[in-house]
Amino acid sequence: MKTGEDRLVQKITRALAGNGGTSLVLGAGDDAALLKPRAGYQTILTCDWFLEGSHFLRDKHPPDSIGWKCLARAISDVAAMGGQPQYFLLSLALPQSHTSQWLDGFLKGLARAARRFDCRLAGGDTTRNREILINVTVTGEAPAGRAVLRSGAKPRDLIFVSGRLGEAELGLRSLRNGRVTNQRNRRWLKKHLYPVPRVALGRWLAGNRLPTAMMDLSDGLSTDLSRLCSASRVGARIAIDKIPRVNLPGGKGRGHYDVTELALHGGDDYELLFTTRPRQAGRVPSAFQGLPLTCIGEITGRTELIAIGPGGREGRLAAGGWDPF
Amino acid sequence: MKTGEDRLVQKITRALAGNGGTSLVLGAGDDAALLKPRAGYQTILTCDWFLEGSHFLRDKHPPDSIGWKCLARAISDVAAMGGQPQYFLLSLALPQSHTSQWLDGFLKGLARAARRFDCRLAGGDTTRNREILINVTVTGEAPAGRAVLRSGAKPRDLIFVSGRLGEAELGLRSLRNGRVTNQRNRRWLKKHLYPVPRVALGRWLAGNRLPTAMMDLSDGLSTDLSRLCSASRVGARIAIDKIPRVNLPGGKGRGHYDVTELALHGGDDYELLFTTRPRQAGRVPSAFQGLPLTCIGEITGRTELIAIGPGGREGRLAAGGWDPF
Repeated sequence: MKTGEDRLVQKITRALAGNGGTSLVLGAGDDAALLKPRAGYQTILTCDWFLEGSHFLRDKHPPDSIGWKCLARAISDVAAMGGQPQYFLLSLALPQSHTSQWLDGFLKGLARAARRFDCRLAGGDTTRNREILINVTVTGEAPAGRAVLRSGAKPRDLIFVSGRLGEAELGLRSLRNGRVTNQRNRRWLKKHLYPVPRVALGRWLAGNRLPTAMMDLSDGLSTDLSRLCSASRVGARIAIDKIPRVNLPGGKGRGHYDVTELALHGGDDYELLFTTRPRQAGRVPSAFQGLPLTCIGEITGRTELIAIGPGGREGRLAAGGWDPF
Repeated sequence: MKTGEDRLVQKITRALAGNGGTSLVLGAGDDAALLKPRAGYQTILTCDWFLEGSHFLRDKHPPDSIGWKCLARAISDVAAMGGQPQYFLLSLALPQSHTSQWLDGFLKGLARAARRFDCRLAGGDTTRNREILINVTVTGEAPAGRAVLRSGAKPRDLIFVSGRLGEAELGLRSLRNGRVTNQRNRRWLKKHLYPVPRVALGRWLAGNRLPTAMMDLSDGLSTDLSRLCSASRVGARIAIDKIPRVNLPGGKGRGHYDVTELALHGGDDYELLFTTRPRQAGRVPSAFQGLPLTCIGEITGRTELIAIGPGGREGRLAAGGWDPF
């Protein structure tokens, strides 16, 4: 008596089967999921598009990368609040041609990310479509009052970023140009295909009450820093040469890659951007579990973004990252 | 410093501005929403696609109907569990050409549904796309242990439906054929364009502990009853002539409309399908707030769906509703 859609849902739930978690009363297979929130915790809720043509290319991106990344990037929003991811809903629209082999690869990558970040399938919606459409909703939890918002930055706070910026953008370019020739290329490509949301770092920072504001870097530093400043009604001054960037021989990039441009405007890094009170800055380690944490500037009271160039020259920093509109 | 996407998000949040609700700590504009669950309640979580071409037609469906319906149908899943809707996330992908007048109409319908069902915007994601893509996540709450699942039906339970089935399907056909000529047509069309999820009925039934299983009718009675039976590992016998259907002169439908087929397989009604223990059936009123509640058959121990025809003839009922695959 099962419909084609029912069989597809069964395939998805089997591929992602696992311990339901102590706070899941009811998962995929009913009208909705039913969660039992923990006393003393708040629920974090976010969703993310992942669309063919905009966010990935059907003929360039391996299906398991699409599965991994659609969940990883939604989890990154939970990490950005210092929360622990818990459950996800998967909305999937597929061409009939992609419901067997492609779907297997997709579900493999998705299941791997779900295990890695301890985030469990709780439901979703499937339908047929000419193009591959994905939307992922993720829930997480944080102790009440401990989630870190974008809006808490104050003048004189110091600005930090995790990791090295621009690597994922370089990985995307390598993929587009078919230039995956050496180990360095592969590192960037991996960062583009299988980004690692900074859940442990976000929780550690929030747990130690270090950040006054925090967000993840998904659309590029220049765009996202402007959003953090806008939410906090402040400005920022950053030193260009302090921004941790791709390490390329010659510094300026081989051929046409400008690593500074990549670090300022490249998207998809999923690193954390956060601010701390100046007197707390000493408590921020130079690295967390091997991931560098770098101070790149400070928050100001004037609502503008200033970048200090190599020779000490100051200029306005315009949002130059990813903007679909 | 705002990007095009930021301006679009601002337009959406302004159109849907309202009281944030006592349990919303943080809504649209940060990495994620932050909710404060009520002690003693469980969280209901669901999401729904609403896609151009599959669920609506750009040139046939008014934008305010698309706005109303994308939220109403997701809320219907919360109603189906006997819950109260609370917050929603809006994922919207639009062509640039649809970011002004069309979007205004869409947001008007969406805001109207949000007010009507007391469900507030908590966040979302926007991007650009050639086709209009919508995905809505809705959260709701129900007192712990009171949400009604699909899986609780037992043999001899009686099967009820609310409303009249097939009306929305008839409305869709009127819209497609451009036949919106009289008041009756308009009634069906309204049911197709602006469906009303049965939130009050679902809560009343769950509050009175009447249903053993419940779900909403979105893909057609034959398909959805088969899902309820499958989840409960039971079967059903329904009497065709008891199914409340479209009231057409002549009974069999004018022209080529077969109202029985419409009632059995027509989708998008968003009525409730529920089962009760036989001794509780007397407590189900014949109407709830003017909405008829009709007993159409009973649950059986054999995992098959039997339909009893007008002359007492029995036959297997096959799932003939909406199936995208």
